Amino acid sequence: MLRISAAPVAGGDESREGYRPRGFSPLLHPVAGIRHGGGMRFHDFIRDSEGWRLAGDEVLFANPYLEVHRVLISTPTRPEPFHWTVAHRKGAVVVVPVTEDGRFLLVRQERVPVRATIWEFPAGQIDNHEDPDSVRATGLRELAEESGHELAAGGEMISLGHFFPSCGFTDEHSHLLLARPVVPVPGGARPDEAEAITECRAFTAAELKAMVASGEIRDANSLSAYARLCAMGLMNS
Amino acid sequence: MLRISAAPVAGGDESREGYRPRGFSPLLHPVAGIRHGGGMRFHDFIRDSEGWRLAGDEVLFANPYLEVHRVLISTPTRPEPFHWTVAHRKGAVVVVPVTEDGRFLLVRQERVPVRATIWEFPAGQIDNHEDPDSVRATGLRELAEESGHELAAGGEMISLGHFFPSCGFTDEHSHLLLARPVVPVPGGARPDEAEAITECRAFTAAELKAMVASGEIRDANSLSAYARLCAMGLMNS
Repeated sequence: MLRISAAPVAGGDESREGYRPRGFSPLLHPVAGIRHGGGMRFHDFIRDSEGWRLAGDEVLFANPYLEVHRVLISTPTRPEPFHWTVAHRKGAVVVVPVTEDGRFLLVRQERVPVRATIWEFPAGQIDNHEDPDSVRATGLRELAEESGHELAAGGEMISLGHFFPSCGFTDEHSHLLLARPVVPVPGGARPDEAEAITECRAFTAAELKAMVASGEIRDANSLSAYARLCAMGLMNS
Repeated sequence: MLRISAAPVAGGDESREGYRPRGFSPLLHPVAGIRHGGGMRFHDFIRDSEGWRLAGDEVLFANPYLEVHRVLISTPTRPEPFHWTVAHRKGAVVVVPVTEDGRFLLVRQERVPVRATIWEFPAGQIDNHEDPDSVRATGLRELAEESGHELAAGGEMISLGHFFPSCGFTDEHSHLLLARPVVPVPGGARPDEAEAITECRAFTAAELKAMVASGEIRDANSLSAYARLCAMGLMNS
């Protein structure tokens, strides 16, 4: 298992960090046997089990935000290995923050790939997968940075499980957490400069429901969290 | 706007189609001014509006399933253009099929990037974005191919809007449709060989809810559809 200690920047704002495309160094060419050889930290959330076996893994493209791999794999129903293109990404954490009066905090964020500014639950990537408490720690970090809130004394973090954003092409996975109650931190939000969060606001359960129904909430993080909240009976509290 | 007529294969099973990596042809190197220059059909779902302006777009990597672009963009709060890495993908359609007795059809599918076999609503990529009826047509195609069902005579397709699977790094977007009632087609399912759908089964609303709550349903397509169904008051039917 290759572990790389240089921490990549979460998000993709290359200009802010003085990022320069590395061109096609040897690392970017397909090299048999190299696993996760780019600048990205390794996570072992996705692994062989029950008939799944990774027989080969070549890095076709890598930058600090994304690696494209060409894997050779066998599956429970296809024992003969075949190739698949996989976009490798770090794991992420989404937090559903609920205030003491039962409202839900959303942040309004500029999302470059889709050229839209949308309301979402706070979320961020896991930078240190080696920390066994990384999911909770990332959730608390994003809660503070993006929404300017923290878990109240005696508050609870409840796991809503995980989900796969687009499991046909990327190994990205996101953990979902409910944090309640949350209270403002002194000094307010301090979002990552790359993120461009323009606003944070509390919404009632009825308002949240209306935003999901109307399509105003339209990112998989928030919708998946909302689905779990509904199915787990946590939306009527 | 560049339109490319050669239809790429949906999914990523390269071996099945005799796909060979093209190596690093000139197309794969950063070339200023090239937009969507890979083998992927263009869609204009993501576009400039209200302060968003694409000022540059370079293709860093391309194969039939995925293109990595380095865009130069300005946003409503950041008028000075900056760079961002964007994974370009075709749009997709997810269908929620409801049978005449009110059950929900799910398909069990091997998902290579996450090395897991999971229950999901039928879904597929839009191959022909130029067809104004492409969303409905893709939904009906996937309904037939993956679940072996079709919309009953007099049945309805209801839009549940769209969502972005991972809007921090990809422009992928998925349209959500509710199809009811659906009935079996003669001959049954005929899934794309690359997809490895192992089973199709009908679940009651209570079973679906339990699968979402337990984490057994864990793909963004199905969870986002479930969220919309709940918020739109369509889960109690």
